[in-house]
Amino acid sequence: MSGMKTIDLNADMGEGFGPYTIGDDSVLLDIVTSANIACGFHAGDPEIMAATFRMARERNVAIGAHPGFPDRWGFGRRVLPFSTGEIERIIAYQLGAAQALATYAGHQIGYVKVHGALANLTEREPEIAAAVMNAVRAVDAAMPIVAIALSPLDRMGRERGMRVFSEIFADRAYTETGQLVSRRQAGAVLHDADFAAQRAIRMVRGGGIETITGRILPTPIDTICVHGDNAEAIELSQKLREGLEAAGIAIRTMI
Amino acid sequence: MSGMKTIDLNADMGEGFGPYTIGDDSVLLDIVTSANIACGFHAGDPEIMAATFRMARERNVAIGAHPGFPDRWGFGRRVLPFSTGEIERIIAYQLGAAQALATYAGHQIGYVKVHGALANLTEREPEIAAAVMNAVRAVDAAMPIVAIALSPLDRMGRERGMRVFSEIFADRAYTETGQLVSRRQAGAVLHDADFAAQRAIRMVRGGGIETITGRILPTPIDTICVHGDNAEAIELSQKLREGLEAAGIAIRTMI
Amino acid sequence: MSGMKTIDLNADMGEGFGPYTIGDDSVLLDIVTSANIACGFHAGDPEIMAATFRMARERNVAIGAHPGFPDRWGFGRRVLPFSTGEIERIIAYQLGAAQALATYAGHQIGYVKVHGALANLTEREPEIAAAVMNAVRAVDAAMPIVAIALSPLDRMGRERGMRVFSEIFADRAYTETGQLVSRRQAGAVLHDADFAAQRAIRMVRGGGIETITGRILPTPIDTICVHGDNAEAIELSQKLREGLEAAGIAIRTMI
Amino acid sequence: MSGMKTIDLNADMGEGFGPYTIGDDSVLLDIVTSANIACGFHAGDPEIMAATFRMARERNVAIGAHPGFPDRWGFGRRVLPFSTGEIERIIAYQLGAAQALATYAGHQIGYVKVHGALANLTEREPEIAAAVMNAVRAVDAAMPIVAIALSPLDRMGRERGMRVFSEIFADRAYTETGQLVSRRQAGAVLHDADFAAQRAIRMVRGGGIETITGRILPTPIDTICVHGDNAEAIELSQKLREGLEAAGIAIRTMI
Repeated sequence: MSGMKTIDLNADMGEGFGPYTIGDDSVLLDIVTSANIACGFHAGDPEIMAATFRMARERNVAIGAHPGFPDRWGFGRRVLPFSTGEIERIIAYQLGAAQALATYAGHQIGYVKVHGALANLTEREPEIAAAVMNAVRAVDAAMPIVAIALSPLDRMGRERGMRVFSEIFADRAYTETGQLVSRRQAGAVLHDADFAAQRAIRMVRGGGIETITGRILPTPIDTICVHGDNAEAIELSQKLREGLEAAGIAIRTMI
Repeated sequence: MSGMKTIDLNADMGEGFGPYTIGDDSVLLDIVTSANIACGFHAGDPEIMAATFRMARERNVAIGAHPGFPDRWGFGRRVLPFSTGEIERIIAYQLGAAQALATYAGHQIGYVKVHGALANLTEREPEIAAAVMNAVRAVDAAMPIVAIALSPLDRMGRERGMRVFSEIFADRAYTETGQLVSRRQAGAVLHDADFAAQRAIRMVRGGGIETITGRILPTPIDTICVHGDNAEAIELSQKLREGLEAAGIAIRTMI
Repeated sequence: MSGMKTIDLNADMGEGFGPYTIGDDSVLLDIVTSANIACGFHAGDPEIMAATFRMARERNVAIGAHPGFPDRWGFGRRVLPFSTGEIERIIAYQLGAAQALATYAGHQIGYVKVHGALANLTEREPEIAAAVMNAVRAVDAAMPIVAIALSPLDRMGRERGMRVFSEIFADRAYTETGQLVSRRQAGAVLHDADFAAQRAIRMVRGGGIETITGRILPTPIDTICVHGDNAEAIELSQKLREGLEAAGIAIRTMI
Repeated sequence: MSGMKTIDLNADMGEGFGPYTIGDDSVLLDIVTSANIACGFHAGDPEIMAATFRMARERNVAIGAHPGFPDRWGFGRRVLPFSTGEIERIIAYQLGAAQALATYAGHQIGYVKVHGALANLTEREPEIAAAVMNAVRAVDAAMPIVAIALSPLDRMGRERGMRVFSEIFADRAYTETGQLVSRRQAGAVLHDADFAAQRAIRMVRGGGIETITGRILPTPIDTICVHGDNAEAIELSQKLREGLEAAGIAIRTMI
């Protein structure tokens, strides 16, 4: 129905490697509308990528390339001292690999969302955000990116005319200026699924980020990031989905 | 000029890794018309790939993706016991990565040629040849492949309607049935640059492979593989190029 | 008590990598008396190795180095075409790494047991069995090895004067000549925990391997290999331990 | 002769990987008395390690373990954000691997010298220097370390009773406080082989580091680090060796 609020739900998937798995992608694919799929540098491998692309296609879930630092041991969560040029090249490489395997599997990469330590850098370093944009546009000028709402990547992407999907986190607290509260601080991660779901619904309805004191910082919100790597995260994701639907917000892919 | 014989010269390049290099790509790029570029599994990395793509573009040299087994330590020369499906996925992954980095570097992947142990398998195992074709066509239905002349990949590729460039080797002897003489046998590798150059010219002119006894096995010949990883190989490559030109055979990319 | 039958129980552990885990080592360490610990080539990393060595020391469980092929993606289950010399060097490297980290963690490597595809090779290729022995003795002449009962490694190790612990599998059927029934055949893996436990007790008491038809092939048995990577395997291991104790067989480390 | 000045010359070796090589170890082994051998994390592999250990034994050259960050692509020159505990474990692992392969090859690890970015950290971060010492002593309480003269590792190692070999660099300029001039500054690297050789002789004779202004900072000097990865470095190393001998300084291993 025209005018109905819609929202996308995204989650990281395909994060296994050979015999190893993280989370239950099969369960998550029934909850989300977009799957961010690891590209073989911090997690994932060609087998897992192709299999996850196929599963996503069968469940009608959009897929995004989810490139990270080349660091399986650290799961892409360690900051590697790469130059912006090196970052451009590792993103281009991973994006291309994901595009080819998606085509092979009968699906299509719909967006790019960077992972872990690389994503954290785009929250505070404009030159890293620029490197991400340069890489994506050089490979495919029309390729959308997912950016953390209110981050330099979010702002700069829109300024430069890219298609940007702004993302909020269902289970993370926000500072008064709209940044994620550091995981080192108490209260950084929300553990009450009902509260988290209701807060996310308020943010989607209110059109902005709700800070830790309840203030709303207006910003576009296109997608909510959820997790599936433990039972608590799965429960939160399911409650969020049910809550959004109960609130009359349609869950549809952002693509 | 219409009717003039033409031939392509191809060589493996971009085979370094981080601080390591193999051969002098800068010299080779003045000799060949096509560069087969390692895609990061058996050799190469995103930095080297992008830099080599840029150099090739500046020298007006065509580029091909040169995927191999995921085995840097063994340089892709060890046969890994991969299923045909796994081979499809590692080729698709590497081809996509190369395509994206080529686009990033202002060039375009013009063909696929598989490397090392994987290439050797396509000389004798039709199901591996089929896996190579399946992977390439799934990613890009119009993408040409380079196949060893008279190999199953060569024959099957043409039968299935792919664009196939048939390749001979400047420095390798051929058996009476057109296979490469095993490196374990004496005489497998030609060390006399003048002889090798003249033999290659005879093959291009004669339209067939010259066996170790001097017989000609008719077959299309689109490109001659040369090497650049040592001084002898470079000398052979240069003599071959000069000899072909002196013989009135134009050296032009096969693409 | 003098004359009391004793047996060792061993299991593979420390098979995670960075954020990934396989099985629940904490549960297994209460069941077994010897832990075979991956050395960073097919699984494991320095963090996991040191942590597992510490846990084993606290639970009074012996530790063995468990080297495999350098193949994390394939978890050491793919046969890599290594020469016997290369196999010697990868075993020496991994054994030394494990010894140093064990010392660092306050424990001591008590034996070597090779993993996966490398272990399978020692069941049928005497030259690979010899390579394993050569590597272990070259590093530490007194270091014991665990060998599959009745395998070439088992026989050759004893002939050459090494300290050999002969191993049977709690959950695998045996052919009439004492080999493991191939996993590709029906009945290769025992799923009935009670039956498997009772069969293992019969083998320990009877001093030999029980074949699929119930025949006993006499052979020394020093340790029983159990698994912990799924709930069924854990249940079998626990029933085996309880059954052995109920049968008056003491469970003690083989070292 | 009693009272004769002696000095050790050390160089990094075994820095290849599979088909790749860096420098000519065979030439260097005729110049130096100690070889720092990469342990497979930033460079080297079990084949190269064993072969280099054998060559060193044949030339009567001492060997040291030369551990680095797990970063082949970056050759151990990138600072990875490892905790001090993680640094301890990667050093212990690499030291043990080197010890075992040295024993296998008929030689013995005589010291530990850390590589690249890890070594640079020990010049300025006392807690990293402490981690290096902790790791080495935990594995082998009597194992000596090579430390950059006047660095925290140098001072702390002696304070804690370790056997420390203090090292100067033949081709690097020193600041007034005895640190290496940053490579980003002009004059950081000495390119005049004669000048560098004479300066090193003055330092050995004078018993201290010669700063860029010619001041001498007294400090023990046990070994001079030379390089072999290019022709200029080889020439400097040879002139240094000849100059030391001409000056009556005996070149002997520090072990």
